[in-house]
Amino acid sequence: MLAGIDLGGTQVRVALARSDGRLTESIKTKTALLPTAQSMVDWAAGEIDRHRGREKVRSITIAAPGPIDMKRGVLVNPPNLPWQNVPLAAMMSRATGAKVMLANDADMAGLGEFHHGAGRGTRNMVYVTWSTGVGGGLIIDGKLHRGAHGTAGEIGHMIIDPNGPLDTCGQRGCLEAFVSGKALARDTGHPAAEVFAQAARGDGNARIVIERAARYMGMALINLTNALDPEMFVMGGGVTRSWALVQPTMIETLHSSPFIKPARRPQLRRARLGDRAGQVGAVEWARLNQ
Amino acid sequence: MLAGIDLGGTQVRVALARSDGRLTESIKTKTALLPTAQSMVDWAAGEIDRHRGREKVRSITIAAPGPIDMKRGVLVNPPNLPWQNVPLAAMMSRATGAKVMLANDADMAGLGEFHHGAGRGTRNMVYVTWSTGVGGGLIIDGKLHRGAHGTAGEIGHMIIDPNGPLDTCGQRGCLEAFVSGKALARDTGHPAAEVFAQAARGDGNARIVIERAARYMGMALINLTNALDPEMFVMGGGVTRSWALVQPTMIETLHSSPFIKPARRPQLRRARLGDRAGQVGAVEWARLNQ
Repeated sequence: MLAGIDLGGTQVRVALARSDGRLTESIKTKTALLPTAQSMVDWAAGEIDRHRGREKVRSITIAAPGPIDMKRGVLVNPPNLPWQNVPLAAMMSRATGAKVMLANDADMAGLGEFHHGAGRGTRNMVYVTWSTGVGGGLIIDGKLHRGAHGTAGEIGHMIIDPNGPLDTCGQRGCLEAFVSGKALARDTGHPAAEVFAQAARGDGNARIVIERAARYMGMALINLTNALDPEMFVMGGGVTRSWALVQPTMIETLHSSPFIKPARRPQLRRARLGDRAGQVGAVEWARLNQ
Repeated sequence: MLAGIDLGGTQVRVALARSDGRLTESIKTKTALLPTAQSMVDWAAGEIDRHRGREKVRSITIAAPGPIDMKRGVLVNPPNLPWQNVPLAAMMSRATGAKVMLANDADMAGLGEFHHGAGRGTRNMVYVTWSTGVGGGLIIDGKLHRGAHGTAGEIGHMIIDPNGPLDTCGQRGCLEAFVSGKALARDTGHPAAEVFAQAARGDGNARIVIERAARYMGMALINLTNALDPEMFVMGGGVTRSWALVQPTMIETLHSSPFIKPARRPQLRRARLGDRAGQVGAVEWARLNQ
């Protein structure tokens, strides 16, 4: 069998699957209930053991927010998790006896959407997660592209205006500094979810703020189209719950580029798997690397 | 045998090679001597026929400046060539009896540098050509990535400042609008080559203009590193003749990103094959697709 674990800031999810990738179980708990990395490992290993029946679990992928040290399997310094510099892959392997891989959560969500979600049937797809932060996963010629150090797809840190605001990463004018939930909260003094709720009720100022963010995101899509020439963008993350508020401006911006002729315009679709994308992708990665 | 043809604004080059890719002949002529597409096809086919000996030439790639219609083999609307909407691949195939592919010249130069130049031994490499315009070619996991419509690698049209100058492509604030030879000439009132000569002689104003361009190019390298995580950038094109004037600022800018930690910094190397990169890559593409 295979397992995928998705470490989120709010929830930790475990999925079990047959060796062909078919999911058999999906379990979740609150991240706050697992204060140490060892407690998370023990909980996940316990759930895997309880649900595997008589089968052996051979391959496990843990999807975690970056930065991660892919080769050493170490969670370095995740912004929304309480665990730092933890050799998660080795700990999980010790607890389960399985081969364990650590992977970037946006990469895994992208892989999930590519194999089982909105991106099915494409060969070149860019997954964008738009939420508190902005991340991405690249599917190139039918395969996840992780890059030389496993850090490909960091599209939130594309510099889109060198005179823009300072991002928390230390760069100036990153996409994230314009469009992320953090940026919207900084600009409005309200949590991003509230700004979207106001805009949905027709508040003019909230609409202006969100339209501006969608325009910047549209420019990022132009840049990614020119660099990668994908067939499709698949977009997930909390902001896409307000799809009707952001999709038209993104499409309008993408289509406004005179350099990107209609014949080579990529599609823009909303992700389909929701919160499950990470675990579905992690199972897929475990299947591909078993 | 194989052949590669490189259509440049100044010169047209033909290379012949054995089926293993080893070059046996290289011939060039002035583009101005070939006023029609048919005259170019006749000249190239004649040279190929004269140098093939008793061997048959099975596969030919024509490297041409974009935009090209890769699938139909049509040269659409190249800025520096006098031929428009020409079905070059079909014409060359008729003249030689070979399978003929049309490919983007920056892609072919990148492929040449990857297989036989500065990028040898890498798996993930980004080729950047910095000249009158700015283009690129992406090597992903050891293979040329052309994208869904053959237009991947258009890094000159990355928007790097939405309030920047209008580019000739119609987008505002493209990389090209800040750093290309055209942009330098626009900003200084002198041809780019003259600005580089002035800077080499120590002219302070020329140095400031070139340093600014190198800083913007460095930001593009940051964006490409975050998106693609390559091992190496290989840079060619006329500007790289003044490597000592641009390399330090590009490196300084790339290394100034606090988000790109030293362990994942890509190398930056000057291209090695010079004007021959396009034909070498075209032969390689003919070999890979024979």
